[in-house]
Amino acid sequence: MLHENTTARLLITCPDKPGIVSAVSGFFYNHGANITALDQHSTEPEGGTYFMRLEFQTPHLDISRQVLADTFADAVATRYNMNWSISYAADLKKVAILVSKYDHAMLELLWRWSRGALPCEVVAVISNHEDLRADVESFAVPFHHVVVHGGNKAGAEAKVQSLLADAGVDLVVLARYMQILSADFVAQWPQRIINIHHSFLPAFVGANPYQQASDKGVKLIGATAHYVTADLDQGPIIEQDVDRVSHRDDVEILRDLGQDVERNVLARAVKWHLEDRIIVHGNKTIVFN
Amino acid sequence: MLHENTTARLLITCPDKPGIVSAVSGFFYNHGANITALDQHSTEPEGGTYFMRLEFQTPHLDISRQVLADTFADAVATRYNMNWSISYAADLKKVAILVSKYDHAMLELLWRWSRGALPCEVVAVISNHEDLRADVESFAVPFHHVVVHGGNKAGAEAKVQSLLADAGVDLVVLARYMQILSADFVAQWPQRIINIHHSFLPAFVGANPYQQASDKGVKLIGATAHYVTADLDQGPIIEQDVDRVSHRDDVEILRDLGQDVERNVLARAVKWHLEDRIIVHGNKTIVFN
Amino acid sequence: MLHENTTARLLITCPDKPGIVSAVSGFFYNHGANITALDQHSTEPEGGTYFMRLEFQTPHLDISRQVLADTFADAVATRYNMNWSISYAADLKKVAILVSKYDHAMLELLWRWSRGALPCEVVAVISNHEDLRADVESFAVPFHHVVVHGGNKAGAEAKVQSLLADAGVDLVVLARYMQILSADFVAQWPQRIINIHHSFLPAFVGANPYQQASDKGVKLIGATAHYVTADLDQGPIIEQDVDRVSHRDDVEILRDLGQDVERNVLARAVKWHLEDRIIVHGNKTIVFN
Amino acid sequence: MLHENTTARLLITCPDKPGIVSAVSGFFYNHGANITALDQHSTEPEGGTYFMRLEFQTPHLDISRQVLADTFADAVATRYNMNWSISYAADLKKVAILVSKYDHAMLELLWRWSRGALPCEVVAVISNHEDLRADVESFAVPFHHVVVHGGNKAGAEAKVQSLLADAGVDLVVLARYMQILSADFVAQWPQRIINIHHSFLPAFVGANPYQQASDKGVKLIGATAHYVTADLDQGPIIEQDVDRVSHRDDVEILRDLGQDVERNVLARAVKWHLEDRIIVHGNKTIVFN
Repeated sequence: MLHENTTARLLITCPDKPGIVSAVSGFFYNHGANITALDQHSTEPEGGTYFMRLEFQTPHLDISRQVLADTFADAVATRYNMNWSISYAADLKKVAILVSKYDHAMLELLWRWSRGALPCEVVAVISNHEDLRADVESFAVPFHHVVVHGGNKAGAEAKVQSLLADAGVDLVVLARYMQILSADFVAQWPQRIINIHHSFLPAFVGANPYQQASDKGVKLIGATAHYVTADLDQGPIIEQDVDRVSHRDDVEILRDLGQDVERNVLARAVKWHLEDRIIVHGNKTIVFN
Repeated sequence: MLHENTTARLLITCPDKPGIVSAVSGFFYNHGANITALDQHSTEPEGGTYFMRLEFQTPHLDISRQVLADTFADAVATRYNMNWSISYAADLKKVAILVSKYDHAMLELLWRWSRGALPCEVVAVISNHEDLRADVESFAVPFHHVVVHGGNKAGAEAKVQSLLADAGVDLVVLARYMQILSADFVAQWPQRIINIHHSFLPAFVGANPYQQASDKGVKLIGATAHYVTADLDQGPIIEQDVDRVSHRDDVEILRDLGQDVERNVLARAVKWHLEDRIIVHGNKTIVFN
Repeated sequence: MLHENTTARLLITCPDKPGIVSAVSGFFYNHGANITALDQHSTEPEGGTYFMRLEFQTPHLDISRQVLADTFADAVATRYNMNWSISYAADLKKVAILVSKYDHAMLELLWRWSRGALPCEVVAVISNHEDLRADVESFAVPFHHVVVHGGNKAGAEAKVQSLLADAGVDLVVLARYMQILSADFVAQWPQRIINIHHSFLPAFVGANPYQQASDKGVKLIGATAHYVTADLDQGPIIEQDVDRVSHRDDVEILRDLGQDVERNVLARAVKWHLEDRIIVHGNKTIVFN
Repeated sequence: MLHENTTARLLITCPDKPGIVSAVSGFFYNHGANITALDQHSTEPEGGTYFMRLEFQTPHLDISRQVLADTFADAVATRYNMNWSISYAADLKKVAILVSKYDHAMLELLWRWSRGALPCEVVAVISNHEDLRADVESFAVPFHHVVVHGGNKAGAEAKVQSLLADAGVDLVVLARYMQILSADFVAQWPQRIINIHHSFLPAFVGANPYQQASDKGVKLIGATAHYVTADLDQGPIIEQDVDRVSHRDDVEILRDLGQDVERNVLARAVKWHLEDRIIVHGNKTIVFN
């Protein structure tokens, strides 16, 4: 285990060219960083898009964060036309959870977080129902009830936006939030909203996938965690998993088994986001795990 | 392990009513059958459809097969309005495999069969290409090349039908046969054609599912074995499985991994059919395994 | 889903003989029971031990529970030399959880139970540490701290026994209870103590299996739920599962991943016990799930 | 997919120090290599052992293989005290398979190899029985029968060694070879003998693991591929997998299911070895897959 509060991570996307690894690793080495992980991926052997995740330790850095960033931009990033970002593990990301009535996905996150297994700060749970207030408050997390009805969708979204802004949120997790977010809302959180879809996408897009799965007689049920885009249920997939079912399992049992899959799939996706392991490229993800 | 050649299996579908288990098991007990497995399923707690698989040993039966069937019909089946059938393990089912150029699914079946792991007689392999003749003939199985082209689809199907009839085939397995069978053909083999679809249905119905899976960036790929109906890729699902993939895996690797899943899924489905473990109900299967 | 409070289950172990299914199902049919599930298993095709689980609905029973039991004993059980028991789902089993400091396994049980997914009454949590009191009491479950130290092991066990007796406990679950129970204690709870062992038994019997797994460089880690017998870590296995690990995973990560496996394996095992799905035979289990 | 015959791979083990990635990637970049994969691992955040696998393309290399090796040794490897090796994918490794009577593991390898899925040359199958000669020869692979009996173990091993030497073998695969190799033999093939053990090691070391698994009533059975060392069944584990079993599965079925697991586990391990993805460190493996 690395000493977490000295860990930093660099994520890079750029056109693939020879020399990138050498240029990047040389730069950090020369500034006293100890590289503790380096993962890369290219879409093509030559001429494709290149992705890198570099994890390094900061104790012996010879320059400040700001100077490191400026110098890296000048010395390396511009030359290779990189999209890049550096995150510091000590700066815990602030997370808000949006939820409706199903508690299983939210509780799994709160429970893992309370045990130290999700490196973040959960700053708010927002729900369109009151039902889960007590559960949330038992974790000493603020619970906000934002009523949504036909006539006030825009107003409700504005209220949610304001709560997220006030709390300085970095990541929004939809833990079975049963409201469709507007394209405008989604556009303000690019690659920063993670949803858990209760199906193996793209098999059962849309409502009531467990009923669909039952009607179809599938032998496996699944769940999919993905970033949310304006195109409902179609955003970049982060993680999926399945469980085996049989003719014995009615819709209710499919739902029970499915909720266990949802819990684990969402928890893994959120953890990888918090550890800066995910790069989105078009409609797909690179996950360095 | 039971002594296979004394094993028989009864499959039943009927309206659910109290007393079925008692009536059926009593009947067989009274005629000297030793019941070695009994599985059942109801779609509803009351008033649904009822399914049973009963496996029994024949050495001490006090009547002939024909009398057993007649007596069962009179004494039990008519009263409960049953669809039913009795199969004897000693009567090996005759299997024909239809295949095009991909050899993996066919070879898995031939290989398991040659080791005694598929209780059947493989009586023919029929292909629209010559490529796999040597592979097939090395198992001492007759290989038939039936050319299919735009103008002769009906003629080719007639030729296939005639080969199947001549060989007395009980089960047709499509081991990546890349021709679409006509509704007429399919109608003559109800619940007796098993296909392996190279996808987790219904996620990627249609052509080139591995390309679709790659485009979509899914994290699991799968395969589905199903009975063939006139509605392409929509017949009752028998078995499915998946394997984990990542951004590292290009379409070619997805295909390689997928073929391993296809092999195992198809082999399981065929084995269950041969052991009379599957009952079709509407568009779903009950699999007593 | 069956209406749970009209469901009853019969478990049988007896020498295998022809006619058992017929005798049992006939008996219950004649007394107005509607059989909704029947599972059976024989250790041998002939002359082995026979096991049955029969689930039936009680609304149309024509006799009382007591008379049903007496009549069944007279009419069927004695004739076939059966060990048998009937349970009624409406009589929720009373469960006590013993735990030390690790909370994951206990919380999973409490969480599932609080959502209605474990059909029981959790009547007590007993721990040799104070640490988890608040967690437990937030579920409105009584928490008992029973100090164990070298000199008072017998006294502590007596105290635990007395708490279990006072609460009328039916099942004791060791959710990572880090004390070894004496043979005397165990003998008083035959097949009524379930332990979760943090390893794929019998691979890493004993202390610190995650360190052992790490030292050995295994590629899968697992967990095992089993009934407790006097022979430590050797009781009948109920359920096992594994997760994949790699050289990247240090002991701490193995423990994290392993705890997720432990949670799920223990929850399944306890659920199956509560639903009367398990029969112990020698040192093995028959699980009708 | 990379053009395989221009691919080369470097494997490194050395004390961990800052600057290694930079030094290695800079060296190859400066000589015209295009790095297409770079994986690394450290046993500790600082001061541990460091491992790297670097895959590069050779078309634009500015020096010969020999000069590349010499220069790398001088410029980088010596400075960092590296154990290292470079392999060229175009130089197919030569593989010999040792087998007894069970054919499943051997056939899986031959079958994958014949379809181009195992990048190697299978130059010999050696067996202590005649049984599999026809199977092997149908793949146009030389089959050698080397009789082993009590009195001639040393002589038989010498004969095997001589066959391996004559064929220029790089890797020996024990595909269920039921003879114990002497410590002398093993010492001559360090990390170049892969064995498939028909159990989830270390659970059931030794003979007849399926009987052991059945006696113990485990709910999962597994298989383990490992490098062979003088310490029987204890060499570095490369890959493991499991399949679920139940009380219904007798020893014979455990064996059938287990053989399917064995086939896949061994095929994966051999493929990884052939692709230079495995580094052995002490009694553990680093697998860069």
